[in-house]
Amino acid sequence: MKALVYHGPGKKSWEEKPKPTILEATDAIIKIYKTTICGTDLHILKGDVPAVTDGRILGHEGIGVIEEVGSAVTNFKKGDRVLISCISSCGKCEYCKKGMYSHCEKGGWILGHLIDGTQAEYVRTPFADTSLYHIPENADDEAIVMLSDILPTGFECGVLNGQIKPGDTVAIVGAGPIGLAVLLTAQFYTPSAIIMIDLDDYRLSETKKLGATHTINSQKEDAVAKVLSLTENKGVDVAIEAVGIPATFELCESIIAPGGHIANIGVHGKSVTLHLETLWSKNITITTRLVDTVTTPMLLKTVSSKKIDATKLITHHFALENIMQAYDTFQKCSKR
Amino acid sequence: MKALVYHGPGKKSWEEKPKPTILEATDAIIKIYKTTICGTDLHILKGDVPAVTDGRILGHEGIGVIEEVGSAVTNFKKGDRVLISCISSCGKCEYCKKGMYSHCEKGGWILGHLIDGTQAEYVRTPFADTSLYHIPENADDEAIVMLSDILPTGFECGVLNGQIKPGDTVAIVGAGPIGLAVLLTAQFYTPSAIIMIDLDDYRLSETKKLGATHTINSQKEDAVAKVLSLTENKGVDVAIEAVGIPATFELCESIIAPGGHIANIGVHGKSVTLHLETLWSKNITITTRLVDTVTTPMLLKTVSSKKIDATKLITHHFALENIMQAYDTFQKCSKR
Amino acid sequence: MKALVYHGPGKKSWEEKPKPTILEATDAIIKIYKTTICGTDLHILKGDVPAVTDGRILGHEGIGVIEEVGSAVTNFKKGDRVLISCISSCGKCEYCKKGMYSHCEKGGWILGHLIDGTQAEYVRTPFADTSLYHIPENADDEAIVMLSDILPTGFECGVLNGQIKPGDTVAIVGAGPIGLAVLLTAQFYTPSAIIMIDLDDYRLSETKKLGATHTINSQKEDAVAKVLSLTENKGVDVAIEAVGIPATFELCESIIAPGGHIANIGVHGKSVTLHLETLWSKNITITTRLVDTVTTPMLLKTVSSKKIDATKLITHHFALENIMQAYDTFQKCSKR
Amino acid sequence: MKALVYHGPGKKSWEEKPKPTILEATDAIIKIYKTTICGTDLHILKGDVPAVTDGRILGHEGIGVIEEVGSAVTNFKKGDRVLISCISSCGKCEYCKKGMYSHCEKGGWILGHLIDGTQAEYVRTPFADTSLYHIPENADDEAIVMLSDILPTGFECGVLNGQIKPGDTVAIVGAGPIGLAVLLTAQFYTPSAIIMIDLDDYRLSETKKLGATHTINSQKEDAVAKVLSLTENKGVDVAIEAVGIPATFELCESIIAPGGHIANIGVHGKSVTLHLETLWSKNITITTRLVDTVTTPMLLKTVSSKKIDATKLITHHFALENIMQAYDTFQKCSKR
Repeated sequence: MKALVYHGPGKKSWEEKPKPTILEATDAIIKIYKTTICGTDLHILKGDVPAVTDGRILGHEGIGVIEEVGSAVTNFKKGDRVLISCISSCGKCEYCKKGMYSHCEKGGWILGHLIDGTQAEYVRTPFADTSLYHIPENADDEAIVMLSDILPTGFECGVLNGQIKPGDTVAIVGAGPIGLAVLLTAQFYTPSAIIMIDLDDYRLSETKKLGATHTINSQKEDAVAKVLSLTENKGVDVAIEAVGIPATFELCESIIAPGGHIANIGVHGKSVTLHLETLWSKNITITTRLVDTVTTPMLLKTVSSKKIDATKLITHHFALENIMQAYDTFQKCSKR
Repeated sequence: MKALVYHGPGKKSWEEKPKPTILEATDAIIKIYKTTICGTDLHILKGDVPAVTDGRILGHEGIGVIEEVGSAVTNFKKGDRVLISCISSCGKCEYCKKGMYSHCEKGGWILGHLIDGTQAEYVRTPFADTSLYHIPENADDEAIVMLSDILPTGFECGVLNGQIKPGDTVAIVGAGPIGLAVLLTAQFYTPSAIIMIDLDDYRLSETKKLGATHTINSQKEDAVAKVLSLTENKGVDVAIEAVGIPATFELCESIIAPGGHIANIGVHGKSVTLHLETLWSKNITITTRLVDTVTTPMLLKTVSSKKIDATKLITHHFALENIMQAYDTFQKCSKR
Repeated sequence: MKALVYHGPGKKSWEEKPKPTILEATDAIIKIYKTTICGTDLHILKGDVPAVTDGRILGHEGIGVIEEVGSAVTNFKKGDRVLISCISSCGKCEYCKKGMYSHCEKGGWILGHLIDGTQAEYVRTPFADTSLYHIPENADDEAIVMLSDILPTGFECGVLNGQIKPGDTVAIVGAGPIGLAVLLTAQFYTPSAIIMIDLDDYRLSETKKLGATHTINSQKEDAVAKVLSLTENKGVDVAIEAVGIPATFELCESIIAPGGHIANIGVHGKSVTLHLETLWSKNITITTRLVDTVTTPMLLKTVSSKKIDATKLITHHFALENIMQAYDTFQKCSKR
Repeated sequence: MKALVYHGPGKKSWEEKPKPTILEATDAIIKIYKTTICGTDLHILKGDVPAVTDGRILGHEGIGVIEEVGSAVTNFKKGDRVLISCISSCGKCEYCKKGMYSHCEKGGWILGHLIDGTQAEYVRTPFADTSLYHIPENADDEAIVMLSDILPTGFECGVLNGQIKPGDTVAIVGAGPIGLAVLLTAQFYTPSAIIMIDLDDYRLSETKKLGATHTINSQKEDAVAKVLSLTENKGVDVAIEAVGIPATFELCESIIAPGGHIANIGVHGKSVTLHLETLWSKNITITTRLVDTVTTPMLLKTVSSKKIDATKLITHHFALENIMQAYDTFQKCSKR
C-alpha cells in the first residue's frame, strides 16, 4: 500500500509500505477513507518530537471502513464505517477507568507517533473496541473526521476545562484550527461574548462568521487594554490559550478576571512565567490537558443532530495520493 | 483604649488610641476577648504591604463581645459573643453573591489593613451581619479564634481547591501555621496519605501527631525522589503550596501526578517558573485563592461537633497587654 | 393609587389603595412600569393559597423606576430602572448565603402573597439591595420582565436541576409559559433533542418555532411509546415536569433513561406515586425546587447579549388599568 | 467441586457441580478463598427474583486466587489474588464508559443471578480485566471481601449520592449490613452528626461503637419528632434509605431539610408515596442507584491505608462447607 512516511527532520515521502496486519487480538485493520494533517505533524517534521523515528507512517486522524478485526474485538466487524480516535484507550488501566485516556498505560497518543498512523491506505488501530466509534448513518463524513482530534481537543482542553457557562465572557488566544474548534464548541454553553485574539486579520475576519463577537489583532492593538475595555475592566471569565508560546500564555494571565479560568491547549516547548505575585490572590484556576477524547460520544451526538457544523473548519481538499502537496499547503497556511 | 499600632516599617507600639465608634449603619463595635498574630502582620511590619499606613491598628483575627451595633444590623445585638472574620463581606455586590467575599467591592481583607484592626481592646467591624458569626454555646473560645483566618484559609485555598478525595495522596509543602491548618482540615476527606514537607525537623515531628502519614525534610532529603518513591512513581494527587516562594511552588510542579491538583496558598512576592513544556500534557489543575471565609459556617459545625480540634494549632498564650512580647516570640518562631 | 386587589376566592377588583411607603431601612418604593400575571395568581384566585388574605394586592413580577429608598439601601437610588425579582432575599440568613433565596428566613416568595405585590401603580419591595437588579441600558423592557419569575424558574428548576448537557435528549412535559421558558433556556446547553409533550396542538406547533425538535400530543398518541421510539428505547436523559399533576410526573418516571434526571417544576396539590419498584436500580435523580432567582445576573447577561429572545414568551399586551381584562384572557388561555 | 445451588423458592443445597471452565477469552476461573451471603440471596431464596432459575449457584461476593485466564485477559494471571466485584463490567459499552457499570449491556449484576456465582469452590468471572481487582499486599482478606458489594453499595448509593459534606447532619434509616456500610463510609466526609434509625436496640447500640452520634428506635420513639429536635427543627441534610419499604422511604421524606438529599439504597418491591404537595418547593434531591462498583479502587486505597476498618462489619465465620448453616444464622439475624 501507499503511505506518507517520515524519514527524519525535514524528510518525508509518499511511498510503498507493507499493508498492516492484526498483531493483537484487540486490533482492527481499517481502510482509510479520509484523513487530515495536524499541526503536530508539522512539529514532527521539524524534528521536535524525537520519539518519532525514521520509517514511521504519520497521521492520527481519519475515518474508514473496517477490513478485519482481532479475535477479542466485539463492538466492530468487517464493513463497519468508523471514526478513528487520535487517542488509543485500552479501557482497562487506572487512567482509562478514570476517563483520562490520554494517559492510558498502553495507549494514549501513539498513532503516527509510536506506531504507524493514518496517512496511508490502511492502518492498524490497537484497542479497537475502546478507540473506534461507529459513524452515525447519514452523517457527513467530513464533519466526522474533525472528531478524531481537533474538536475533542478544543472542547475538552479549552471549553470543558475552562468551565464556560451561559453569559460568560471568553477570550480565545490563537485563531488557528484549534482556536476555531474552541470557538465552535464554546457556543454549546452560550457565553455572552467570545473575543478572538490573533495576529492575522484574515483569520480574525473568518472567526466573525463562526460566532466570534469581537476580534483583536494583538499586533495592531493593545490586546490587554482592549479586553479590559470590553469587560468593564474586569477581564474575561475564561481565557483559552491555543498557541503554545510564553507570550500568549502570559497574555491570558493579564486578561483573566478574578475567579476566572485559564485553559491551556497549546503544546509548549519552553516554560512560561507565572505571575503569582499578582495572581496568588485572584482566585483563578489554570488547567493543562492532553485531549482524552472521552467526550467523543457527546460530540458525535451534537454533530449528527446538526447542532454544530464541523465542516466549517475545512478549507482544502486533496486526493490521498496528493498528500505531499497537502502538506505544502498546510505549512504555508501555518506560517501566516 | 490600648491598641497595637503600626508606625512604618519595623516600628510598632502598644499605645492609647480613641475607642472606635459606629460610622455606618451596618457597623458593630466589639470588645475584643481574644486575638492572634498572623504571618501577614509580620509582612506588614517589614514594609511589604505599603497600603498599611502609619497609625494603623493591626490585626484581622479575633473573638469578642458586641458593645454596640448600627441601625441596619439585624443579626446581632449588644452582648452577643461573636467570631470576627478576617474578610469583610458587604453581602450585596457581585462577588459576595457568588461567594467570593475575598473580592467584595467594599470589603475583602480590610481589617488591620485599610481600616483599624483587632489587636486592640475594641474594634469597629463593617458589614456586621455578613462578616460576624455567633459563637456556638459551649464552644472552646480558643478553637473559635482559629476560624477568623487560619482554618478557612487552609481549608478553602488548600483542601477545597485541591479537591482532596478519600484515598488520595496529598503533599503539603510548608509546616507553618497554614500548613498545619491544611493538615487538620485535609483529614475531613480521608486521604490515604498526607506527606508533610518542610525544612525543620521539630515542626515535621509535630505534624506526625496531627495526622501526617509521612514527613520529608527537604534540606536533608531529595523531596522529589522521596515523594515519587512513596507514590509508586506517580506523584501525589494533590500538592498544596503553603510557603510562598518559587522553590516550593516548583517543588509542587515536580511532584504532581497526571490529573492532579496544585493548590497555592502562599503569598508570593515574585513570579515563578511554570514548566508548561512538561505540564502541558499532564492534565493538571493549578489554583490560587485569597480566603473567602465562605466555609466559616461549615467549619463552625465541625469545630462545635468536635470533629476537629483546632486548639492543636495553638502553642503560646499572652495577655493582650503583652502583645509586643507575643510579636517577638512569633517572629523568632517564624525564622525557624 | 390603583391596584389589583384580592377579596377572597373568585373575587378581585381594580381599586384605589394607599400608595406604599418605606417601612424598613432596606425597602424601596417602585413605580411600576410593566407587570405580568402568573399562573400562581390564578391559583390564588381559586382560593388554593390560603396565606393570601382579603385585601392583598397581587403580583410578584415587574419592572419599574425607583421612587424612594430606605436609609440602608446602597446599590440603588431614586430614578434607577430596576427589575423586581419574584423572590425577596435578605442576603444575610443561612439560606441566602447558600444561594437558596427561595427559603430566605425573612423573604422568599412574599410579594403578592404575604405582602402587597406588583399589580399596582406602586409597590414596596423589601431587601432592595439583594432583591432588585439594574436593567442594562438598551435592554428590551419586555424581555426583562420575563426575568422576574418565569425565566429563572424554567432555568433553575428545570434546566440547571435537570443538568442538561450538550448532546442530551430532553423531554419537557407541559407547553405552558413555564414549559416554554424551559424550552428557551434548555438551548443554552445544546441538547441534541428537545421533545415537547402537551395536550394542545396549537401550543405544540408554536414550540417548534422556539426550538423543539419533536412534539407529542399525549392525548392523541402514546407518549411513552413515542419517546422510547425517538430515543432508541432508552428514554430521555432529562425529563422536566412543568404541569403539577400526578399523571405528568408519572409520565416523567416512565420515560427517563437509566442515569437520567427528572426535574420537577410543577406546583403539586397532591402526592404522586413513585415507582421505586422499578426505579430503585435505574440510577436516576429527582429534584424539586422553588425558584431561587440566584441566576438572575447570569440570565441578564444572556438576555442583554441577545443570546435568548425572551419576548417570544409574550403574546398579549394590556394597559395596566385593563388588568381585569388581562386576567380574563389569561384564564381562558390557561384552560386550553 | 462443591457449590451452594438454588432449586426454586425455599430450596437450596450444598452439592457437587462441574468445575467451571473458560467460555470467553475475557473470562477468568477463580478458586474461591472467602465468600459471603448477601441479603439479596435471601430474597432469591424467597422466590422474589424470578430470573434466578433452578440449578443456579448463588453468590456475588468473594476473593480468591486465579486458576486460569482467557486469552484476552491481560491484567491478571494464574496465581494472582483477586477481589471479585459483584458487578461485571465489559468496559466497552456506553454505560461502562460513563462509569455506570451497573447498567453494562453485557454485564451488571449477573454473578449468582444470570450465571453461576461465588458460593462455590470455583467460579468463572466474565470480563476479568474490568471486573476483578488485585488485592494489595498485606491487606486483611476479610476486609477486602467487604469490597465486593456491601462497602461500594453503601458508599456509592448512600454516601456519594447523598453528597455528604463536612459538618452535615445525616440520618441513616436501617441499621442492617448496608446501613452499617453507609455509617462507616459516611465518616470519610466528616459529617457533624450521624443519626441511626432502626427498630432493634441491640443493632442501634452497636452503631454507637462504629461512629453513630445519635440513635433512634422508631418503634419506641417518634422518629420524625426526634430528628427535628436534634436538628433545630430543620431536618437532616442527608437522609439515606437502607431498608426498602414504603414506611422507611416516607420517613426520609418527613425528615429532610430544605436543600437536602434523600439517597435510596433499599431494594423496593412496591411503589411509595412521594409527597410532592409539600416537597415541590423544598429544593430536595432524591437519588436511586444500583451499585456501580466504580469506586472500588478508591475504597481499596482507604482500606489498605487503614482509614476504615471494614472487618467491623463481620460478625460470624463459617467454613465454606458449612454454608448451609451460615444461611440459617443469617436468616435468623435478618428477622430481628
